[in-house]
Amino acid sequence: MTDKTNQSWGGRFSEPVDAFVARFTASVEFDKRLYRHDIMGSIAHATMLAKVGVLSEAERDTVVDGLQAIQGEIEAGTFDWRVDLEDVHMNIEARLTERVGVTGKKLHTGRSRNDQVATDIRLWLRDEIDAILGEITRLQQGLLDLAEAEANTLMPGFTHLQTAQPVTFGHHLLAWFEMLARDHERLVDCRKRTNRMPLGSAALAGTTYPIDREITCELLGFEAISGNSLDGVSDRDFAIEFCAAASLAMMHLSRFSEELVLWTSAQFQFIDLPDRFCTGSSIMPQKKNPDVPELVRGKSGRVFGALTGLLTLMKGQPLAYNKDNQEDKEPLFDAADTLRDSLRAFADMVPAIRPKRENMREAALRGFSTATDLADYLVRKGLPFRDCHEIVGHAVRYGVESAKDLAEMSLDELRRFSDQIDEDVFAVLTLEGSVNARDHIGGTAPAQVRAAVQRGRASLASR
Amino acid sequence: MTDKTNQSWGGRFSEPVDAFVARFTASVEFDKRLYRHDIMGSIAHATMLAKVGVLSEAERDTVVDGLQAIQGEIEAGTFDWRVDLEDVHMNIEARLTERVGVTGKKLHTGRSRNDQVATDIRLWLRDEIDAILGEITRLQQGLLDLAEAEANTLMPGFTHLQTAQPVTFGHHLLAWFEMLARDHERLVDCRKRTNRMPLGSAALAGTTYPIDREITCELLGFEAISGNSLDGVSDRDFAIEFCAAASLAMMHLSRFSEELVLWTSAQFQFIDLPDRFCTGSSIMPQKKNPDVPELVRGKSGRVFGALTGLLTLMKGQPLAYNKDNQEDKEPLFDAADTLRDSLRAFADMVPAIRPKRENMREAALRGFSTATDLADYLVRKGLPFRDCHEIVGHAVRYGVESAKDLAEMSLDELRRFSDQIDEDVFAVLTLEGSVNARDHIGGTAPAQVRAAVQRGRASLASR
Amino acid sequence: MTDKTNQSWGGRFSEPVDAFVARFTASVEFDKRLYRHDIMGSIAHATMLAKVGVLSEAERDTVVDGLQAIQGEIEAGTFDWRVDLEDVHMNIEARLTERVGVTGKKLHTGRSRNDQVATDIRLWLRDEIDAILGEITRLQQGLLDLAEAEANTLMPGFTHLQTAQPVTFGHHLLAWFEMLARDHERLVDCRKRTNRMPLGSAALAGTTYPIDREITCELLGFEAISGNSLDGVSDRDFAIEFCAAASLAMMHLSRFSEELVLWTSAQFQFIDLPDRFCTGSSIMPQKKNPDVPELVRGKSGRVFGALTGLLTLMKGQPLAYNKDNQEDKEPLFDAADTLRDSLRAFADMVPAIRPKRENMREAALRGFSTATDLADYLVRKGLPFRDCHEIVGHAVRYGVESAKDLAEMSLDELRRFSDQIDEDVFAVLTLEGSVNARDHIGGTAPAQVRAAVQRGRASLASR
Amino acid sequence: MTDKTNQSWGGRFSEPVDAFVARFTASVEFDKRLYRHDIMGSIAHATMLAKVGVLSEAERDTVVDGLQAIQGEIEAGTFDWRVDLEDVHMNIEARLTERVGVTGKKLHTGRSRNDQVATDIRLWLRDEIDAILGEITRLQQGLLDLAEAEANTLMPGFTHLQTAQPVTFGHHLLAWFEMLARDHERLVDCRKRTNRMPLGSAALAGTTYPIDREITCELLGFEAISGNSLDGVSDRDFAIEFCAAASLAMMHLSRFSEELVLWTSAQFQFIDLPDRFCTGSSIMPQKKNPDVPELVRGKSGRVFGALTGLLTLMKGQPLAYNKDNQEDKEPLFDAADTLRDSLRAFADMVPAIRPKRENMREAALRGFSTATDLADYLVRKGLPFRDCHEIVGHAVRYGVESAKDLAEMSLDELRRFSDQIDEDVFAVLTLEGSVNARDHIGGTAPAQVRAAVQRGRASLASR
Repeated sequence: MTDKTNQSWGGRFSEPVDAFVARFTASVEFDKRLYRHDIMGSIAHATMLAKVGVLSEAERDTVVDGLQAIQGEIEAGTFDWRVDLEDVHMNIEARLTERVGVTGKKLHTGRSRNDQVATDIRLWLRDEIDAILGEITRLQQGLLDLAEAEANTLMPGFTHLQTAQPVTFGHHLLAWFEMLARDHERLVDCRKRTNRMPLGSAALAGTTYPIDREITCELLGFEAISGNSLDGVSDRDFAIEFCAAASLAMMHLSRFSEELVLWTSAQFQFIDLPDRFCTGSSIMPQKKNPDVPELVRGKSGRVFGALTGLLTLMKGQPLAYNKDNQEDKEPLFDAADTLRDSLRAFADMVPAIRPKRENMREAALRGFSTATDLADYLVRKGLPFRDCHEIVGHAVRYGVESAKDLAEMSLDELRRFSDQIDEDVFAVLTLEGSVNARDHIGGTAPAQVRAAVQRGRASLASR
Repeated sequence: MTDKTNQSWGGRFSEPVDAFVARFTASVEFDKRLYRHDIMGSIAHATMLAKVGVLSEAERDTVVDGLQAIQGEIEAGTFDWRVDLEDVHMNIEARLTERVGVTGKKLHTGRSRNDQVATDIRLWLRDEIDAILGEITRLQQGLLDLAEAEANTLMPGFTHLQTAQPVTFGHHLLAWFEMLARDHERLVDCRKRTNRMPLGSAALAGTTYPIDREITCELLGFEAISGNSLDGVSDRDFAIEFCAAASLAMMHLSRFSEELVLWTSAQFQFIDLPDRFCTGSSIMPQKKNPDVPELVRGKSGRVFGALTGLLTLMKGQPLAYNKDNQEDKEPLFDAADTLRDSLRAFADMVPAIRPKRENMREAALRGFSTATDLADYLVRKGLPFRDCHEIVGHAVRYGVESAKDLAEMSLDELRRFSDQIDEDVFAVLTLEGSVNARDHIGGTAPAQVRAAVQRGRASLASR
Repeated sequence: MTDKTNQSWGGRFSEPVDAFVARFTASVEFDKRLYRHDIMGSIAHATMLAKVGVLSEAERDTVVDGLQAIQGEIEAGTFDWRVDLEDVHMNIEARLTERVGVTGKKLHTGRSRNDQVATDIRLWLRDEIDAILGEITRLQQGLLDLAEAEANTLMPGFTHLQTAQPVTFGHHLLAWFEMLARDHERLVDCRKRTNRMPLGSAALAGTTYPIDREITCELLGFEAISGNSLDGVSDRDFAIEFCAAASLAMMHLSRFSEELVLWTSAQFQFIDLPDRFCTGSSIMPQKKNPDVPELVRGKSGRVFGALTGLLTLMKGQPLAYNKDNQEDKEPLFDAADTLRDSLRAFADMVPAIRPKRENMREAALRGFSTATDLADYLVRKGLPFRDCHEIVGHAVRYGVESAKDLAEMSLDELRRFSDQIDEDVFAVLTLEGSVNARDHIGGTAPAQVRAAVQRGRASLASR
Repeated sequence: MTDKTNQSWGGRFSEPVDAFVARFTASVEFDKRLYRHDIMGSIAHATMLAKVGVLSEAERDTVVDGLQAIQGEIEAGTFDWRVDLEDVHMNIEARLTERVGVTGKKLHTGRSRNDQVATDIRLWLRDEIDAILGEITRLQQGLLDLAEAEANTLMPGFTHLQTAQPVTFGHHLLAWFEMLARDHERLVDCRKRTNRMPLGSAALAGTTYPIDREITCELLGFEAISGNSLDGVSDRDFAIEFCAAASLAMMHLSRFSEELVLWTSAQFQFIDLPDRFCTGSSIMPQKKNPDVPELVRGKSGRVFGALTGLLTLMKGQPLAYNKDNQEDKEPLFDAADTLRDSLRAFADMVPAIRPKRENMREAALRGFSTATDLADYLVRKGLPFRDCHEIVGHAVRYGVESAKDLAEMSLDELRRFSDQIDEDVFAVLTLEGSVNARDHIGGTAPAQVRAAVQRGRASLASR
């Protein structure tokens, strides 16, 4: 048992909260992370209250000075966080009253913890999104540089993990660039909806004090004011939308990781990762494991879990605020941290990828990767595509049985399948011929890769 | 066993696909739903092929006429869908060749099923999003009308499902309007990313034919062309983003439903739903169950499930297309159908809600709903908010014990808790006084509700 | 940069791990929680190694003493956890070598971190399950006691949250007892599959040392030995199965919470929760919020999220161990903590629930709750059930219009709907008559409730 | 609009259900699948009603004959399913009354659709589980046969997809056997909880008719009777538990698939799948894609989604039955179908896997797979394991730089790293030496693989 009822709401209560319940229901252990944004919001609120005459200028100064001093205490590690004060808000307010006396108690005029916490989380997430956008850009920059350097590097393109057609390594890297460009877009859209101000919704219905929400909105850099108080205190869409965008981004990094893991295997050997992004084994002395991509791949699950958890959390709640909502913070914090760290690790790692160009090229020469080119060649000779497809299919079956790739067959052998095939076919069957021929927007031709890099650079520059 | 290998890719194969495997891997049972968009895409592709000289104009006309005739067959129910032809694309192409002969085989020149299906789904989803946006607007319109009519209707506002402060029913309805406004915004953002054209990515690397992607893009009304072919064939972000936006919208409808179910209970009796949105019981003759809201609440789960499923589906796939992706369609179809039908049911139902105003008002008079107003009154007398909170807490404890609401206490009784209380307190303790005093943007005052309805009307008009 | 490569696997590496990467890939911040089970496993391993002659008895004693001393250091808070040593295993082993010298390096003979961590988690989870089973039993005991005390208390039973038929409060409470009984069963089944020993699987293929897995199995109290080393190091089924069982249990607690929240609302007022399980509002002085049930309802989401996350984590991993698996621990820890704390809070709270019997009874008298009884009465007079249903339906429609419940109508009024109705009908329309008549296993009759309590007591006693 | 109110509950209603609402809320389109189990339950119910005297024997015979005739109509495809009759139960009952007159209306005496549908789903799922258990056993049998045949086949074992230690292919296959053994166990546990009878719970409170639940329980082959009627009608734990078990099984098949896809790639070439389990490409004539494993890998997502959906569905529902529960069927049906078909496909495919033994062996010779054996060799010479690990690490680094595997180094070269190395080291560095040395329960030695196959056979035989 705590020895007295809580100071912020105890008047109506006849017995104190059970000690385990106090711990179970307190949030200060995780929400203290919001301290900076909580103080920022309080300073803006006090400033507004003074402008509309609810606080005197002297009271405002007392409050603002007190809050700044408290921020100093927190950052110096001297602040005494107390579980019996439940959350970051009451901890700071109680300390303020301790420091500045009765004036501290006036700060909460015209607001409630309901609109206060909703404001804090949005301010916090806005900063996180900005940091994440920065890491995305840094990772994209690394991809552009590597893609440009490898615009001519030949490798097999896969579908179904089977050799499909030759592509360039630069082209492959730009596929990741595109995914990240969408992630950036989505987070910018999400930021727009995050950056709206619930402050002024008070507990659920607004307040009887003559507040001016335009003032706090401008002071805090919000783009808009929430239009309905009941919705303002209970809306957590922005947190869910962020987790959805983060899930997509982590899904992309997981796919990217899957490829890096494949490519560093003894069977592929397409790339090498520097030792500093790998770890070893406590028992197998030869091991060099691609830990960073594996871990990022694994971490996608926790972000999907945060998304599932938050949707579940909200789905049955009647209006307005319910205690369930306290559970919004940990998944959101974890999703943001996970995405940010994963992006950082990738942004550091990508420029250090060392392609093994000979191995890639060797692999592209196997697996009949230019079979489509042969079919297209026959189409140009006037046959319908579907018939060409079948002709080449028979040639491939022969190749599998005789262990010869198409370019290794003699003209006679090839002509067994169609008499339309002539000497000029061999130009078509080279890797270079194949990739150069795919010369349109989005195609794998080196020229297109370089053009895409230029477009990408321009797009990053305009952010 | 099917008695021959598949016509679109059989040349290389030495044995036909197992019959169960054929059924297991075929998608035509569900993807035939895409027929209209598949034909639309094929017509655009053929038109472009003719413009760049790959098809003659006569060939193009033959193909286009054939495809239009096939669309007629499908819509007339005379088309013979065949599982051994795997999917909607091969069914239509096979029928085209059957109808127009060898020219039909040329249609597939310069594309692959990989970019074809990615194009079809985007075209389909674009239409679905438009229909859903329409239903959202219709539902919002209904909410605005009802909110305007009920701008003065008093009810208890709840937090923690405990009586908190009086609000107006109109204000409460506008909270739902706000949620739907965000859903509309999110779907518009999602539509923007859906409406990009992968056609021209071919199997994974682009094509050797001299295609012009700008032409098909314009013919199909896409806003942009995908920038990388590997990404183009494997990107399903738009489907996941749609399911995330749909999950949020269903979460909102589920919360709305939760309230409708509460409000129609014998304990609340705040509203009545017309019989035509309810069903009865096979055993209890008196039952009138709010089936539509209950079912919508339940249906939120399936959309969350679709989202989980699609994220899982994509998370480990290396580039480019893998067969896993075939599993993208059923969850997406189901999520779109569920959201659209649920919105439709609500848009039909909301205008038919009949508030029971007397019951709402009665409820607002119970539960000390104006306790905050009393605290604010004391603040205006010069006391710090925190002290007022405690004073009113003691008054409420007395009220619980003596079974009197605040407005039912005598002035003497009230003054036991603070001698700052005077006769003018009783104006503050009325419901009307309480709501009228919350007179700022987002507040519950009837004047604010009416202003919000006007803003809402303007916003719908500008869509 | 750490200034040297990691001591457990550095030989092959030419550069140290990047400092951020070291932090990003380290697990010691969360896996140090396993220290007790890690040491338990190491002691058993050393004991076995001595029995088979790989360690001398003196070496074993040195190792065991060292490990016990380290456990003392950890529990005294003097142990220096180092992130550069990656995880709990290497931290303890490094400290062991520091304390006892070269003999400490021999402990890792014949095992790997892969089988070590898999063993640790199972030992840890086994303990957690036991604690959780204890809390379930305690909560069930509380439900039985309350159900017995309230075996005659009448309340409305609901379907669709509409008044359906009268039930007893004791009967309602026993529904929760049944759910928890299934949770107990499922966790016992899960414990069985958790309690199998992977130790001896080594890195992935077993070991060349002459280990005896029967010995370690017996020392550690495992029920069985894993049958395949590749599976042994990579199997996390037990963690997922636990999270699934925990999700079901949290779902039950969430449903229970939903009812507690409803029942404490001003509209229901069926029960009162003592102040010590509730909290107040910082702005509304009258509020007493059912925080514990709301929070538990909210916490269900995070456990569902952990389940989603773990399934996602495992779904694409090839054999055997991959770094992804490091991500298994945090969701598992969080799910176990959440379930255990939620059960504890409920086990504390349930005995303190105070039913408001008069309010429950009043509510049961409203809403035509005995309409089914009237239909059954008519069936006993010889009419087919479906016809009786319709007759009573008409009577209810009349009751709605005339604001009379069935028991309030005169015999003449009732006979308008069927001339089979006689004076004896009024006995059937009482609440007591209704519940007493449902006198079969599982029915709501007080006698059945008492019998079910006795069965429940016997079942708990036999655990 | 339907032109009259629903026949099973219309008496109380003043207007018919809206036509769209009727479709939206009807379940017959999917629940008609339960017809056989619905009729089975009805026959048992009628039989019991006759035993306790509620129906005469003649009435029972009329009802039973009628139901059997209806089953015949349904199976002959002549039954007219009507959406306005909502669900499978009302469709069958209405048809019964149509066929046999007023006696048909008596069948519903003493039960409700709430307990009826709960009974039907359990009967249906019991059958599905049995079929799935059969497929698991068939797949396990195939794995045992193949493992026995390949007990000596050498391949690289992987961790982190990096070559770790040599294992046998038989050993690898048995890892999958173990996973499936756990799936079997879990489903048997789930069946136990599925096979309990809610019939007799009626709408929510039991019934006033003198039913004998023991009789129906025995007639329907249930193992136990549900102990509480409120729980009986609302419990869907069994469906969720099934989806959790199915998710784990699909996760296993997804991991299995991941390996099959890797192994059929041009980079691995460890196995060949027969053409009949593969499909081709519409554009790339050479392609032979491992469609079945890819699709199964993809299908895991939809089962995870069903699990998420069902947990979400149930989490906020107060007792007892709510319409939300209608949403339980589609995810359950889909999860069961998906698992059953995926298992069937794998059970058909596994015996047809053709290992490419030379390629596997070649791969095992690369990547320093016997490095651990060298470390263990040094331990046997008396060095502490951690030191040996470091020595071998240096040898591997030299090997990477000089492109020599350990077995390819000369004794002099090896002795540069430790003078404890002698001529006998080369026996240790062979693949055969390595695997044979791991000769304990769960180890990869061929002798252990064969012993494990025998244990597996015995275990299947005892099912």
